[in-house]
Amino acid sequence: MKKVAIIMGSDSDLPVAEKAIDILREFEVPFEVHVYSAHRTPVQSAEFAAGARERDFGVIIAAAGKAAHLAGAMAAHSSLPIIGIPIKSSTLDGLDALLSTVQMPTGLPVATVAIDGAANAALLAIQILAVYDTELASKLDAYRAAASRKVLKNDMIISEKYNGA
Amino acid sequence: MKKVAIIMGSDSDLPVAEKAIDILREFEVPFEVHVYSAHRTPVQSAEFAAGARERDFGVIIAAAGKAAHLAGAMAAHSSLPIIGIPIKSSTLDGLDALLSTVQMPTGLPVATVAIDGAANAALLAIQILAVYDTELASKLDAYRAAASRKVLKNDMIISEKYNGA
Amino acid sequence: MKKVAIIMGSDSDLPVAEKAIDILREFEVPFEVHVYSAHRTPVQSAEFAAGARERDFGVIIAAAGKAAHLAGAMAAHSSLPIIGIPIKSSTLDGLDALLSTVQMPTGLPVATVAIDGAANAALLAIQILAVYDTELASKLDAYRAAASRKVLKNDMIISEKYNGA
Amino acid sequence: MKKVAIIMGSDSDLPVAEKAIDILREFEVPFEVHVYSAHRTPVQSAEFAAGARERDFGVIIAAAGKAAHLAGAMAAHSSLPIIGIPIKSSTLDGLDALLSTVQMPTGLPVATVAIDGAANAALLAIQILAVYDTELASKLDAYRAAASRKVLKNDMIISEKYNGA
Amino acid sequence: MKKVAIIMGSDSDLPVAEKAIDILREFEVPFEVHVYSAHRTPVQSAEFAAGARERDFGVIIAAAGKAAHLAGAMAAHSSLPIIGIPIKSSTLDGLDALLSTVQMPTGLPVATVAIDGAANAALLAIQILAVYDTELASKLDAYRAAASRKVLKNDMIISEKYNGA
Amino acid sequence: MKKVAIIMGSDSDLPVAEKAIDILREFEVPFEVHVYSAHRTPVQSAEFAAGARERDFGVIIAAAGKAAHLAGAMAAHSSLPIIGIPIKSSTLDGLDALLSTVQMPTGLPVATVAIDGAANAALLAIQILAVYDTELASKLDAYRAAASRKVLKNDMIISEKYNGA
Amino acid sequence: MKKVAIIMGSDSDLPVAEKAIDILREFEVPFEVHVYSAHRTPVQSAEFAAGARERDFGVIIAAAGKAAHLAGAMAAHSSLPIIGIPIKSSTLDGLDALLSTVQMPTGLPVATVAIDGAANAALLAIQILAVYDTELASKLDAYRAAASRKVLKNDMIISEKYNGA
Amino acid sequence: MKKVAIIMGSDSDLPVAEKAIDILREFEVPFEVHVYSAHRTPVQSAEFAAGARERDFGVIIAAAGKAAHLAGAMAAHSSLPIIGIPIKSSTLDGLDALLSTVQMPTGLPVATVAIDGAANAALLAIQILAVYDTELASKLDAYRAAASRKVLKNDMIISEKYNGA
Repeated sequence: MKKVAIIMGSDSDLPVAEKAIDILREFEVPFEVHVYSAHRTPVQSAEFAAGARERDFGVIIAAAGKAAHLAGAMAAHSSLPIIGIPIKSSTLDGLDALLSTVQMPTGLPVATVAIDGAANAALLAIQILAVYDTELASKLDAYRAAASRKVLKNDMIISEKYNGA
Repeated sequence: MKKVAIIMGSDSDLPVAEKAIDILREFEVPFEVHVYSAHRTPVQSAEFAAGARERDFGVIIAAAGKAAHLAGAMAAHSSLPIIGIPIKSSTLDGLDALLSTVQMPTGLPVATVAIDGAANAALLAIQILAVYDTELASKLDAYRAAASRKVLKNDMIISEKYNGA
Repeated sequence: MKKVAIIMGSDSDLPVAEKAIDILREFEVPFEVHVYSAHRTPVQSAEFAAGARERDFGVIIAAAGKAAHLAGAMAAHSSLPIIGIPIKSSTLDGLDALLSTVQMPTGLPVATVAIDGAANAALLAIQILAVYDTELASKLDAYRAAASRKVLKNDMIISEKYNGA
Repeated sequence: MKKVAIIMGSDSDLPVAEKAIDILREFEVPFEVHVYSAHRTPVQSAEFAAGARERDFGVIIAAAGKAAHLAGAMAAHSSLPIIGIPIKSSTLDGLDALLSTVQMPTGLPVATVAIDGAANAALLAIQILAVYDTELASKLDAYRAAASRKVLKNDMIISEKYNGA
Repeated sequence: MKKVAIIMGSDSDLPVAEKAIDILREFEVPFEVHVYSAHRTPVQSAEFAAGARERDFGVIIAAAGKAAHLAGAMAAHSSLPIIGIPIKSSTLDGLDALLSTVQMPTGLPVATVAIDGAANAALLAIQILAVYDTELASKLDAYRAAASRKVLKNDMIISEKYNGA
Repeated sequence: MKKVAIIMGSDSDLPVAEKAIDILREFEVPFEVHVYSAHRTPVQSAEFAAGARERDFGVIIAAAGKAAHLAGAMAAHSSLPIIGIPIKSSTLDGLDALLSTVQMPTGLPVATVAIDGAANAALLAIQILAVYDTELASKLDAYRAAASRKVLKNDMIISEKYNGA
Repeated sequence: MKKVAIIMGSDSDLPVAEKAIDILREFEVPFEVHVYSAHRTPVQSAEFAAGARERDFGVIIAAAGKAAHLAGAMAAHSSLPIIGIPIKSSTLDGLDALLSTVQMPTGLPVATVAIDGAANAALLAIQILAVYDTELASKLDAYRAAASRKVLKNDMIISEKYNGA
Repeated sequence: MKKVAIIMGSDSDLPVAEKAIDILREFEVPFEVHVYSAHRTPVQSAEFAAGARERDFGVIIAAAGKAAHLAGAMAAHSSLPIIGIPIKSSTLDGLDALLSTVQMPTGLPVATVAIDGAANAALLAIQILAVYDTELASKLDAYRAAASRKVLKNDMIISEKYNGA
């Protein structure tokens, strides 16, 4: 199976990134985690992206805040699918990172997920890998079925509490 | 090769969707175009999404404006990668569609591209199909190289005009 | 009397939903509470909405956050009045849920109340049921008169404190 | 049948209001149209709202732009369901009217529809009147079915054009 | 001297309003404080505004949050200068109250100050009363001179600490 | 009677400012118009403001766009009431000018009116001058009564057209 | 004298960039214009920035729209002062480009000017070069004095027209 | 070497300003710190700016919140490069200060950095001084290299932890 790369712009983004790591582990999808900054280590960022397909990566997840250029920088150097996680920082509630990540120019898409949406970034990466992997697709469907059952169970609990006999 | 589905919420979204169609044709990626509304034809939307993997689709692109629920509705019924295009409508400059598309709850990602970013949605779909398709990946790299050359040519033209001998 | 349905997208929305429950109890309006997710349990959500009129519901209240599609999904499957409560979540201060709830396309209105405005959602549901129910309308007027009296009493307290003899 | 009142804050809002009038005529729901300003004719606005239930109105629709207080002023004087249409004006793209209309304090809900969403305001009024009117509910379902068929027909046209034999 | 009225939409706005009260006391400007709600006590609000000029008020300050209609309601019933204080509430950081207060239609201005800017509302009221009151104008200039001196003293302290001998 | 000063930051703001001029002429309130820029002619701006009270001005209206500092600069040099008109420019729909005008620090209020609200700025200036001028107050009330009659006439026209015999 | 580089992300940004070119010509400051894209020609962008100081550039101006990463990419490869011009594109009125340009992480500032503020970008570049160049500083002061005179002349024209004899 | 001026609008901005001071000390760049308010001490602000070039300042940094006019006021009185730091205050998350600082009119640029971006303001000032100062430029490059190494070290730590042997 292809690997997923999780790149964060700063080690302070690790708490968010770990939600992605947890999902990938749960699905037994191989991954690599790195800290590269589009601005502080542009050469290493570019090198990583440029070599990612050869190194058997299938998807790159990039998490960054504020003027979040990391996903875009990955997109500039690789034609792999790039997933961007806008990180909420101390001001503007993540709107800056969202717009910096999603409003990419024609030719270089970044698949953007919700602000701080690291779990979804990992799930999207798995969905991408599952396009040609029936077994992984089945795991996804099972995961989703479990989530549905949990909602239905919550409905039952709340129904009992509020809706009477 | 897996097919790409392009679903638009209304036939008025066709001018935007055609930019995606053009890209898919250029890459000779098979596709199907549909008009389904998450609100007006919820059953058909759900049925399409639920059966898409079996019908050999690899990616679903959904374009919608305002309270743009179409991509999310696709995500609710399929574990295929769903790409959302927020469409700019007569008010709020597309911000409503962007937030309605990207801010999905945990468990159901929508890979969101820029407002009105239909060409990028198609390119992202191709990048996803190219993860396990070396030939398609080569086409993507050639496409990107051509885009680079065009920028460099524009630089030459403008350099000659402004920067002198 | 017709019943009111209170649907929340996640059991984490219960603290907000309880403000609606309290109002309905105070007015002795029959209600049912459910947890259904437009995304995680789309089939159950649709079934509930589609059968609601037959099951003697008069109004459906739907509370959801972020890309809040729940009220819209209810509207897609029922021509009952749907009231949407946008829930504030960890980012964007509820603006995402507000726009996702209110900006519905032509043909499928959602009666949207303020962000986290669950008490008002319940009052609006009661106002709807009271259109053809004189007794309920009288209860509403009494409720409003009590609220007025409370403001006037606060005015008296503050007047005494600040405006002298 | 109860009547619907359509109140606009200024005669310049008539082009938007007419979309509501058209819908009400199509459904043969009796209505009255008025120009009252919450600010320029506060007494008449208040009198109209205060007497509306007695004059056999079932719902009041209020359309206003900018600091859109009209719907709120109606709500202050009547416990009928009040539907607010935020009107887009020359600046801020209708966001000012949306927030002024929807963010009502506890106790006085305004059922807010999309910016410039006059057709939906009328449909919501009809949905409210249809709670206890089976015939009107059937008309609504027929109207919605027609809208669905139109989408499906558009899908067929576009399918034929793009999806080949 | 004319009096200043401080009207708040809810007694929960008192902590903000007290900053205005403190300023008025410091300037020995007579004032009256009231709790009136544009929505819950519309009749009393209107009566107060309509009679304010006769009762020797010169300025009305109105403080309200969310869909802040109070200042506009005062303006609808009085041609006295109305000062609006947008109050920050639990969502949207006061932007809703700011737009609801400032975006008044032609004919009925509200003199809007900063979000939660109660001290400035009082100072503005005093500036208005001082247009034809030389003594009050002198007090204002003295107050401003003191504020200047405080800044210059802070500059001296910080200069000494950071700029060396 | 005290005079009103209308200061605009650039001669390109004249079309907006003329709406204020028209109102002042209609009320026969003496005024002076000037072009001063807080940034390009800071000395003249400051001098004008500093001398305005002595030169028998009662109110200063300042109109400016973008980072609209003009009203604030007037406030820095005069304790007269300063009215700010935020001007909409080519980007951001006037939100930049609104926030730059209204969010003044404690001690220096700017009485802010709606974006491009020049007529209201003039009316507010007149309201301020009318606090101690019964005749001017009567003119204001007559002006407002005329505006009310116009709304009522529009209501009659529209009532006749839509509400039948 | 050091040269100024004007880099635009796309040749479609030329109309904005020409306002910078005009200013630099007027001040006889040597410059070079280039089209480099942070995304489409990342290698050339990086090389240009990395070599700029050696090639005797003193300042780099970068103009880009949407997810405007160009200025940030320049900052990643050069410790020269980088000036960012956020370009308004078809959606969001330039807010996306503004936030993507200005919200840079600690360590890599971009000196951001107003949306579409190309003339100011050039003036800022000249101000930077003038820090150690008395003659250029004199030119700047003359330029500013001319701008002041133009405002004062406009004031005279408007004063004559509106303020009478 | 030219000096850097750090001006803050209020002593409450000192915690932000100290991040700039720390950087300047680390680079051994001479500086002066002052508290001047564009509104409360406009004369002193203007005098400082007007005399700054003569007093051997090379750059002025101005930090202010809300309707942040301080940087613009500096720009009005000096043709030195002015760097603006928008300060986040109790409402609107710094958006007001950002727009008030960056959206300057043509002719008077303010080099704006991120909200609360005081460290970057200092670094930008140093970059400006380093244009003609090779030694200072070397220090900047060393500082940036250290920042890069820190990222790479963090990458190594995280790689070891997550990516295994």
